[in-house]
Amino acid sequence: MTFMEKLNGAWRGNKSMVCVGLDPDLKKLPAVLKGEKYPVFAFNRALIDATKHAVCAYKPQAAFYAGQNAVEELAMTMEYLRKICPEIPVILDVKRGDIGSTASMYAREVYDIFGADAATVNPYMGTDTLKPFLDRADKGTVILCRTSNPSGGELQNLTADGKPVFMHVAELARDQWNYNGNAALVVGATCPEELAMVRKACPGMPLLVPGVGAQGGDVEAVIRNGCTREGLGLIINSSRGIIYASNGDDFAAAAGHAAETLRDTINTCRGA
Amino acid sequence: MTFMEKLNGAWRGNKSMVCVGLDPDLKKLPAVLKGEKYPVFAFNRALIDATKHAVCAYKPQAAFYAGQNAVEELAMTMEYLRKICPEIPVILDVKRGDIGSTASMYAREVYDIFGADAATVNPYMGTDTLKPFLDRADKGTVILCRTSNPSGGELQNLTADGKPVFMHVAELARDQWNYNGNAALVVGATCPEELAMVRKACPGMPLLVPGVGAQGGDVEAVIRNGCTREGLGLIINSSRGIIYASNGDDFAAAAGHAAETLRDTINTCRGA
Repeated sequence: MTFMEKLNGAWRGNKSMVCVGLDPDLKKLPAVLKGEKYPVFAFNRALIDATKHAVCAYKPQAAFYAGQNAVEELAMTMEYLRKICPEIPVILDVKRGDIGSTASMYAREVYDIFGADAATVNPYMGTDTLKPFLDRADKGTVILCRTSNPSGGELQNLTADGKPVFMHVAELARDQWNYNGNAALVVGATCPEELAMVRKACPGMPLLVPGVGAQGGDVEAVIRNGCTREGLGLIINSSRGIIYASNGDDFAAAAGHAAETLRDTINTCRGA
Repeated sequence: MTFMEKLNGAWRGNKSMVCVGLDPDLKKLPAVLKGEKYPVFAFNRALIDATKHAVCAYKPQAAFYAGQNAVEELAMTMEYLRKICPEIPVILDVKRGDIGSTASMYAREVYDIFGADAATVNPYMGTDTLKPFLDRADKGTVILCRTSNPSGGELQNLTADGKPVFMHVAELARDQWNYNGNAALVVGATCPEELAMVRKACPGMPLLVPGVGAQGGDVEAVIRNGCTREGLGLIINSSRGIIYASNGDDFAAAAGHAAETLRDTINTCRGA
């Protein structure tokens, strides 16, 4: 199945627009995992088991797997996801952006070595740096548009030719980058007005929305401004709010409960 | 020594503004290395031995070390560089750009795990995503400004508030990001006019210039438009033109010769 097919299936099958950010920080793992040979993988596996009925996607952030052992634990996590919930798409958050020959190597790494369904990419260097990702019709390319961090607007909200830079990105995604129907955009929950602008310009495109929970984004505003006409279209990421819901022995059950709560809050807002 | 001290020392000590891009593609390695246990490292080691008298920096592109064994060979290469030519700065080309907490992990990976003197970063997400790099006064932060690839101008040359986006990046680098005196900018050899604009705005800032050689940039225009008043200030990267100068048994000698030739061409253009 393609990324888009999986995403559409998971939105409907799980009645959920929640994405769980698998960002395991070794220093924050529950004490109960300390004796494990692969503590990061054990943490992820428990989180996946506890949340897979309540999510539309998983998003491991590559930085949390940067050490050498951790790379192996990322590979183990990806394999576990493919085995236990092959119907849930996995977005590997790598934010790549590099010249074409290099981008091809990165695309192969994310899609073929790690087996992710989608990758996040940075558009600053333009079309030829995104093409090796976009060319893979079976995979998703999730392009940074208006990011949720405090300085996100510094370049992204500069006005050029009558519209902000992030809207140039949104329109390029709609008009030039979506030739395989596999493009998606990142718009932060912390900028609901920009979310409305992007949704208006790209009525059917999936939007990955980080920034609810720890970063302070408001779920109601995200739903009001970001849903498609059919009340879908969003991949609402929460990481710390779910994976560290408890750091006791009950961490997995607490994560499952937190994912269900966010799913239900979202569904109430969208009237589903 | 800091990145800037090493760079200034290497420019003068080696009388060279050449940077060698250590981008080893397993499929292109000379046949003579086929039997090696660590062919990528063996390739790099021979290239380093043959060029270290003629360069101002090395720049491994991280994508070429993305597989698991290759990560080890990158670490071996970094260690070899520290041992054999500790006076030459090493720029790890990772083009990172992510939210602050994640950027901190990436900065630690590049500077402390791999021990690089500098990292390349992507400014699209703004100040708080660059700060974990810029905060390291001992290390260099090399910020993408106007890139050399064909679509580089798509967003970077949009005009906002009377100047192109890449000039906003150059002025932010000068006015806000250089608080530790460790910022540098990437401007491609393929856009000499933009190079002149950036140099005018940032008279003393080091500029990393990819795109000579395989990408077609003109050395004479780079020198005319990019040097500082004292005829320095550039880190002119060549990868394929040097490391694949020959794929016979003489590959290392050929690489050394290619680096010397580029060094001399540059020095002739700058009248040194």
